[in-house]
Amino acid sequence: MEPGGVAVSAVLPAGGSGERLGGATPKQFCAVQGRPLVSYAVRAMERISWISDIIVVVSPENIETMKTIVEKYGHKRVTLVEGGITRHRSIFNGLKVFAEKEFSSRLLQKPEVVIIHDAVRPFVEEDILSKVVLAAKEHGAAGAIRPLVSTVIASAADGCLDHSLERARYRASEMPQAFLFDIIYEAYQQCTDYDLDYGTECLHLALKYCKTNAKLVEGTADLWKVTYKRDLYAAESIIKDNLSQEVCVITDANETVAQIGFLLPESLKSQIKVEAVSVSQSRNDSQLQNIFSGQCYNFVCVNDKKYAIQETQQLVHMLEKSDIPLLYPVVLISVYLDISGNNSFSIGMEELTSIKKFARETKKKNILVYGLLIQYK
Amino acid sequence: MEPGGVAVSAVLPAGGSGERLGGATPKQFCAVQGRPLVSYAVRAMERISWISDIIVVVSPENIETMKTIVEKYGHKRVTLVEGGITRHRSIFNGLKVFAEKEFSSRLLQKPEVVIIHDAVRPFVEEDILSKVVLAAKEHGAAGAIRPLVSTVIASAADGCLDHSLERARYRASEMPQAFLFDIIYEAYQQCTDYDLDYGTECLHLALKYCKTNAKLVEGTADLWKVTYKRDLYAAESIIKDNLSQEVCVITDANETVAQIGFLLPESLKSQIKVEAVSVSQSRNDSQLQNIFSGQCYNFVCVNDKKYAIQETQQLVHMLEKSDIPLLYPVVLISVYLDISGNNSFSIGMEELTSIKKFARETKKKNILVYGLLIQYK
Repeated sequence: MEPGGVAVSAVLPAGGSGERLGGATPKQFCAVQGRPLVSYAVRAMERISWISDIIVVVSPENIETMKTIVEKYGHKRVTLVEGGITRHRSIFNGLKVFAEKEFSSRLLQKPEVVIIHDAVRPFVEEDILSKVVLAAKEHGAAGAIRPLVSTVIASAADGCLDHSLERARYRASEMPQAFLFDIIYEAYQQCTDYDLDYGTECLHLALKYCKTNAKLVEGTADLWKVTYKRDLYAAESIIKDNLSQEVCVITDANETVAQIGFLLPESLKSQIKVEAVSVSQSRNDSQLQNIFSGQCYNFVCVNDKKYAIQETQQLVHMLEKSDIPLLYPVVLISVYLDISGNNSFSIGMEELTSIKKFARETKKKNILVYGLLIQYK
Repeated sequence: MEPGGVAVSAVLPAGGSGERLGGATPKQFCAVQGRPLVSYAVRAMERISWISDIIVVVSPENIETMKTIVEKYGHKRVTLVEGGITRHRSIFNGLKVFAEKEFSSRLLQKPEVVIIHDAVRPFVEEDILSKVVLAAKEHGAAGAIRPLVSTVIASAADGCLDHSLERARYRASEMPQAFLFDIIYEAYQQCTDYDLDYGTECLHLALKYCKTNAKLVEGTADLWKVTYKRDLYAAESIIKDNLSQEVCVITDANETVAQIGFLLPESLKSQIKVEAVSVSQSRNDSQLQNIFSGQCYNFVCVNDKKYAIQETQQLVHMLEKSDIPLLYPVVLISVYLDISGNNSFSIGMEELTSIKKFARETKKKNILVYGLLIQYK
């Protein structure tokens, strides 16, 4: 439901050049776990049912790239708009599709409140979006803020310290921000070329041109902006962390194997944070279907048949149909549990070749298949 | 050499509680690749030959932890000092060991210039240290700065925006900073309890109490402060990246194996950024000794003897003597190249058990041994 029954849409400026990253690819298109950063930000908006339209503003040379991303990751409710040469010009273009016919093939429904969020802030929760929207409805404008990490100083013309700001009195202005559409659109219409070319802060425009003092909302630490290469590293680790919160253990009907299928989740629980689920063999089990439609991206499949490749293929097929591998890499570990009691492994090259070939194919579909042999006495 | 013949020492405040990290362990003691963050900062100072003394200021309850860290990682020229309840009080305590007898068992030689750096900034290069020291010698005070990542805003009493600062006019004050010792010590002696309890900025004290306008020096992006959990992730990835810049391939005298020893570095070079070095069999080779004393932390040892455990043990022994595993994890991949042309692998359980046992032992010494079988036709 919309917070307070307000009609809401979002504009995501994604036109930056990413020069601070030190690479050729603008940061919003850099891959994080194989998927471009901008797709995470779009996904964060898209999963909120009360956001009607998501306007992604990209520079003309990246329109095709962005179209491919929207298609590849199945993003919905997205409209692409060509950006201007600065951040403010890009946001202004994004807002125009709601107000001016010539900027869109179809005029989108003008929202009461518009959210502005960065394409390079992949982690934004419904809670803060809801808070800024409600505050914008009441105050006309609202933005997320965070405490300053470093002291802010002003330098004199000679490159020496002029004065330092008292850290506790100031805040870092972050995203998301939200505005009554009419207020921010009027502010953009009235602002000068200097503002459009050199300004960076939407809250400032609302204050300067519409006398609207934005409500400041304390945000969480995960709202930070991917700016440097280290931020890409951090984003990657956070996503990996989230993906490894849950594992699903699927076991064979065989008694010994089923026992392992019970012991494995127990021992995993004690070592790392996992949600372990045991599921019996029947692969069309509704429990399994539920897991496939949930937040689980890791599967361990234990059986006592040497390279049970058909069963693995069946699982991969079900995963493909579930659409989860579209957004995140799925890991499937096929464990062959050798309970024969023999003293040595013996692996045929043909079997090795066929599982390797299969894994190579599924990798293209973002499903990472691993084979594991365990000798169990 | 000292920059400009100046006597330099350093103070590292490491007394923070790390509440923003959301964990029980203060961030400076959090492990990054198995080693506490503070040890990286100490190491960054220690490897600079012209820094005489390194004063690490820790809270009383962490003195023993810090002593253990200094011992375990073989840090030199370090003096531990008990911190106060705020950052400024801790830094003041650190400075006192150069000036007041009762604060140290031995009075340390008072430096002309003192560097102040944070324990939670693990990446600081000699270049910026040298720059702030020279600037401090000339101007009395100097500090590293960085462009602001977010716009800074001031909030009014009602939680609404009061005004936003023009981002280009301000800078983030970072570390390292450097001061003529007499200036910063006088500033600390003169400053009020309010300054000591609520202030955060040393440059501000030098300006307020000694009329010294610090020279501001543009720093590199790697000077950032580990503040949140994501910063620990980033630090870990950066260190891993640095560690994987170079690999040393050691090959057997056997002709086929030597050929692989040539092909492997060639193919690695084309796929990832590596410095590959081929070394012939003689394990007491001076070339090998040079590599062990350098920046290489990854070794691939190729031979055609099934689990040549003695040779691996010999290499591990040489690595241990080199002291590198003390600071960074060393990876040693022992590759058994099967050129027999047989169609299947056959591995005895005893051999598996013995190499696994060996790997478990070396892991305690921070040397990670892996075994790899390759069938080569």
